[in-house]
Amino acid sequence: MNFTMKEAIEVLERTPKTLEHFLSGISDEWLHCREGEGTWTVSEVIEHLIEGERQNWIPRLTWILQEGDTKPFPPFDRYSHLQKKHESSIEEKLHELNKIRTESITRLKELIDPERHLESTGLHPEFGSVKARELISTWVVHDLTHIAQIVRVMAKRYSTDVGPWKAYLGILKAKDGAS
Amino acid sequence: MNFTMKEAIEVLERTPKTLEHFLSGISDEWLHCREGEGTWTVSEVIEHLIEGERQNWIPRLTWILQEGDTKPFPPFDRYSHLQKKHESSIEEKLHELNKIRTESITRLKELIDPERHLESTGLHPEFGSVKARELISTWVVHDLTHIAQIVRVMAKRYSTDVGPWKAYLGILKAKDGAS
Repeated sequence: MNFTMKEAIEVLERTPKTLEHFLSGISDEWLHCREGEGTWTVSEVIEHLIEGERQNWIPRLTWILQEGDTKPFPPFDRYSHLQKKHESSIEEKLHELNKIRTESITRLKELIDPERHLESTGLHPEFGSVKARELISTWVVHDLTHIAQIVRVMAKRYSTDVGPWKAYLGILKAKDGAS
Repeated sequence: MNFTMKEAIEVLERTPKTLEHFLSGISDEWLHCREGEGTWTVSEVIEHLIEGERQNWIPRLTWILQEGDTKPFPPFDRYSHLQKKHESSIEEKLHELNKIRTESITRLKELIDPERHLESTGLHPEFGSVKARELISTWVVHDLTHIAQIVRVMAKRYSTDVGPWKAYLGILKAKDGAS
């Protein structure tokens, strides 16, 4: 096991600021391209990360500590951000992600005493019993997954532009997907 | 074709600052893990990006403008950073990348007039004739590739820690590789 609360929080607190530095002020062409039909734009990935803060991570951790594994987690719709109208700019979305993530980390530190709560269990509707530390690890990997998705979607805009170098650039052959 | 100089430079100028915000001050455990034998750590990826500025992008663009396709590019060793001793901290490496990239972008703008030079050709030792705009597009995609690599290497540290969620996290199944 590699997980520690300290190192997990190091990634969680860096993600929004990293994305702010990468995406603020960038051209719309980078933000609204897709790698294929039914896949997410860079902008939609940011919306999905915001929805995760609202519906998934802290709500489920709270559920674990309150309900244990007596009742399964309430369902979480990972496509909910696509049903909403998002007319805010990328800078506003990134600011929102930064704000809500800061609140989540504060709450995480209040909720979880690493000496007592990491092995606490909840009931996942599909997986059955899951541990608090597995959920927090997944939160970290979920961030990293979506950073990887953002750069992959952007890279694919230049699939043809790179000419013969395409043969050396594995990212251009990586599979499409919503996440 | 999606390439424009303006949008390419948007990515090139953001990469070092993005990586600085993501990696400065992070624990060594994130910087020195590997996804498999013979693959690069996060720290080694930063060294590779620095070497690319020294040996690859601007030197090859200069070659295209000076030599055209009369003589092939001098060889570029993509593993050269592994032969050197790198005892500097990650913050020093990131600062070096930022500095050398800023110089490269200044040079890029001096060298390339988008109205005149994007179709200029050079001779790649393996691919034959390549265009300046293909080389610059590849520079952009190379940045994105190595950001994807960094987050993938980090994500794989938690391959076991995520428990049953592994099934949903494609990044943990992405193939190993030096790049």
